[in-house]
Amino acid sequence: MRYLRADERCLICSLRQAENLLKKTINSPEKRWVIFREIFRIMSEMKWGLKPLEVNGEIHRFIMEYVKVEDPFKEEKERSNEMALKVVEMFKAEILNSADPVYSAAKLAASGNLIDLGIPGWKVEDIFEKLHEAYERPFDREDYEKFREALENASTLFYVADNAGEIVFDKFFMEVLKQQNPSLEIIVAVRGRPIINDATIEDAKQIGLDEVALVIDSGVEEPGVILDKATNEFRKAFFESDLVVSKGQGNFEGLYEEERSNLFFLLTAKCDFVAEILKVPVSGKVFVSSESL
Amino acid sequence: MRYLRADERCLICSLRQAENLLKKTINSPEKRWVIFREIFRIMSEMKWGLKPLEVNGEIHRFIMEYVKVEDPFKEEKERSNEMALKVVEMFKAEILNSADPVYSAAKLAASGNLIDLGIPGWKVEDIFEKLHEAYERPFDREDYEKFREALENASTLFYVADNAGEIVFDKFFMEVLKQQNPSLEIIVAVRGRPIINDATIEDAKQIGLDEVALVIDSGVEEPGVILDKATNEFRKAFFESDLVVSKGQGNFEGLYEEERSNLFFLLTAKCDFVAEILKVPVSGKVFVSSESL
Repeated sequence: MRYLRADERCLICSLRQAENLLKKTINSPEKRWVIFREIFRIMSEMKWGLKPLEVNGEIHRFIMEYVKVEDPFKEEKERSNEMALKVVEMFKAEILNSADPVYSAAKLAASGNLIDLGIPGWKVEDIFEKLHEAYERPFDREDYEKFREALENASTLFYVADNAGEIVFDKFFMEVLKQQNPSLEIIVAVRGRPIINDATIEDAKQIGLDEVALVIDSGVEEPGVILDKATNEFRKAFFESDLVVSKGQGNFEGLYEEERSNLFFLLTAKCDFVAEILKVPVSGKVFVSSESL
Repeated sequence: MRYLRADERCLICSLRQAENLLKKTINSPEKRWVIFREIFRIMSEMKWGLKPLEVNGEIHRFIMEYVKVEDPFKEEKERSNEMALKVVEMFKAEILNSADPVYSAAKLAASGNLIDLGIPGWKVEDIFEKLHEAYERPFDREDYEKFREALENASTLFYVADNAGEIVFDKFFMEVLKQQNPSLEIIVAVRGRPIINDATIEDAKQIGLDEVALVIDSGVEEPGVILDKATNEFRKAFFESDLVVSKGQGNFEGLYEEERSNLFFLLTAKCDFVAEILKVPVSGKVFVSSESL
């Protein structure tokens, strides 16, 4: 069985995420310093062998309890969703008229995982340009033919979503999949509680994800789904669907150890820890079968 | 009096430097994890109000005691020196024939603070190209006229050096200064003990820095000189010289609080903490009088 174990890079990355979250919620540098000391105390007791999501989750949970803000990224997520709803319209004709709309829509969904859509002051045109640049690059690693085969034989698809904003491109990808396989039933899972900019039920509703799929929540509060911590509903969907698409790096980390056929990871490798595992460069675009890892 | 206080950015940056140092000296990820837990324990007790160099110095000292390697960056520093000795020759004619060789040589010295010269596998031509690109950009902030005036009236210059490799460009800058003011006597200070890639006496000797200046060591083992921790010899040179050039970000951090006339900081702002203080963009090139800060 393969095993994903955090190393020191994950420790430092979790601290950078903590920094982002604290900058958003605590104005006083001195108070942030004091909270960091508490975080260091927690980290000084972290056992070797933890998964990156566990490191991250523990720090995130501590901060959220401390700052007592329900959803610090709410506005940013809403802005990302609104932006993505505009940008996706600029892609639709190009993708639907491409040689293989499924392939093209998958590429857009993976590219949407790379681009930060919520930057204040950015114009739709800027985002479109950046995203199109990313979209034009081919996958750095893919098992697309295998996915096509699995799609043709599937009647149920379970899609594990990642960030707000990005879910707009996931929704479009699902629409294209349904055009290809009209009887396909889709369940999509979002996070159980606000964590960073990950999509929750509320974010999914904002973009009408429930028009194409049954939206459930995973029950987890880590920035990626670990099956042990997920609801029974999530586990059932994961094991009983014909086909599973796991979106984004967090879910890749969480589901990497799971063994089932027709499980595909669609993501951009955002750090060199994950890029190393996937054998792609950092920022590499990946659509890979779990069985080929 | 101005005061430089570390914030959470410095904590995380120090950890990144710890990561670099540990990667060089400890092969086992599990062992590195255990050391990081110890570092977190130390950091969980760090008082608000420390200077960035104190944070950095404490972590560095702990690691050096743990790993028991005298100079982990020895090879890298030697390679940087060798590389810089070749590259500086490619700049000499251009700078000596420029409208103002002092200004041009200062720009090269500041640019040499940005470029990592010790990357294995890099060719002289690659380094020259990168460095020339940086060299061509003007200073983002400067009090050059003020420096020229001070230079003309100075009979002694104290130069606080920073990294190995880079010191080759500092040496060339000193040669140009002496052409301008032939009676100028120069003392240059390097670090008291190996710390990261900062220049020590040995590194200074490798490039013949003692041909143009009296080389002393600062006595400190932080990656920048804090006067309180420096030798009397260093303090004397700092206060009694007509003119002081403090090179690099570490020395800027260390000497920022000092008040004396004719103290100039020559550096590239490498992080947004320092860039913010200097009111320049990150990677901004600076040649600023202490009195204008």
